[in-house]
Amino acid sequence: MEERIQKQLEFSLEIDKEKNVFRQTHLSGHGRRENDAEHSWHMAIMAYVLREYSNQSVDIAKVMLMCLIHDIVEIEAGDTYAYDEEKLKTQKERENMAKENIFSLLPEDQKCELIALFDEFEEYKTPEAKFAHAMDNLQPLILNNSNNGGDWKEHGVGAKQVYGRQITTKLGSQYLYEITDGILKDNIMRGNLSNDLAE
Amino acid sequence: MEERIQKQLEFSLEIDKEKNVFRQTHLSGHGRRENDAEHSWHMAIMAYVLREYSNQSVDIAKVMLMCLIHDIVEIEAGDTYAYDEEKLKTQKERENMAKENIFSLLPEDQKCELIALFDEFEEYKTPEAKFAHAMDNLQPLILNNSNNGGDWKEHGVGAKQVYGRQITTKLGSQYLYEITDGILKDNIMRGNLSNDLAE
Repeated sequence: MEERIQKQLEFSLEIDKEKNVFRQTHLSGHGRRENDAEHSWHMAIMAYVLREYSNQSVDIAKVMLMCLIHDIVEIEAGDTYAYDEEKLKTQKERENMAKENIFSLLPEDQKCELIALFDEFEEYKTPEAKFAHAMDNLQPLILNNSNNGGDWKEHGVGAKQVYGRQITTKLGSQYLYEITDGILKDNIMRGNLSNDLAE
Repeated sequence: MEERIQKQLEFSLEIDKEKNVFRQTHLSGHGRRENDAEHSWHMAIMAYVLREYSNQSVDIAKVMLMCLIHDIVEIEAGDTYAYDEEKLKTQKERENMAKENIFSLLPEDQKCELIALFDEFEEYKTPEAKFAHAMDNLQPLILNNSNNGGDWKEHGVGAKQVYGRQITTKLGSQYLYEITDGILKDNIMRGNLSNDLAE
């Protein structure tokens, strides 16, 4: 087998491990915890279906690919829960090492291309990165909303923390942030999310 | 909430169920069975990484989206193993009903768009459909190859049946079919796949 395809297939096999990285979010119907591959698949389809709400026009292929690969580093670095302050401190360093290791399995040109795309997502600057992040917020929100906020309750997360993260959806989509705000207010009203906003 | 976004979010929540549709393929490392969402995620990334081997030039966004949605109907119709002759007979009918039900959750324009894309995949005619099908063949093959052909052994599937399906990869990528052929011959040699080609 030629070296190029061999490297591409090694990378393809390696990323299979992302299916074993479990998140804090639970599947709808009070199901089991979701893994990173499922989360990424879900985000990519939602990005396509909801693309009309992006604040700025986006290259949707780029957004979808960003969604698909944005968690690959967690194969080595593990999942960091959005509200785990301690693990968040070392997240960047752990993920940088993992990024180098995993994407190095690819031929050099593809390694550079996918690392650039991964970094673009992380840097939060382009319209595509902002919209992909909006999906990274919205996808677990609709699952958690369908489960009466079970994930927030399990981790004792309050409205202040949730808004702190979800507000970034505004950068990608003002409209989807308004929808998010409506969902959060509804969950506060239903007692699914503790209201610590005035504290 | 406006009707349009409400429908889009209902569809987004419904497809979460694809994570509970399990396939016959096992994850690498002799892992558990893979589900449709994971399989689709994996196919979409592989399509991107391997796009240079498509026989014809493809719109890669279209290929990726096809990969992502091609199994959504199995939420209702269930997974049909590629070598299950009995279930294959009713597959089309079951999937057509499911297609109508699931995509009808979307606003009409998006329902039409995604059904057209789903049908295009099924019809196997365009370069994008052919390349997406090549991924649908290659993705489980690399997992099964890494597990010493465990899935073939479990189902008593021989080389004749496997070649019967994998040969369609040729339509999307002559090069990836040659790679596939090499992998299959190697598995026959290693005793992972019974050689009934001469029968």
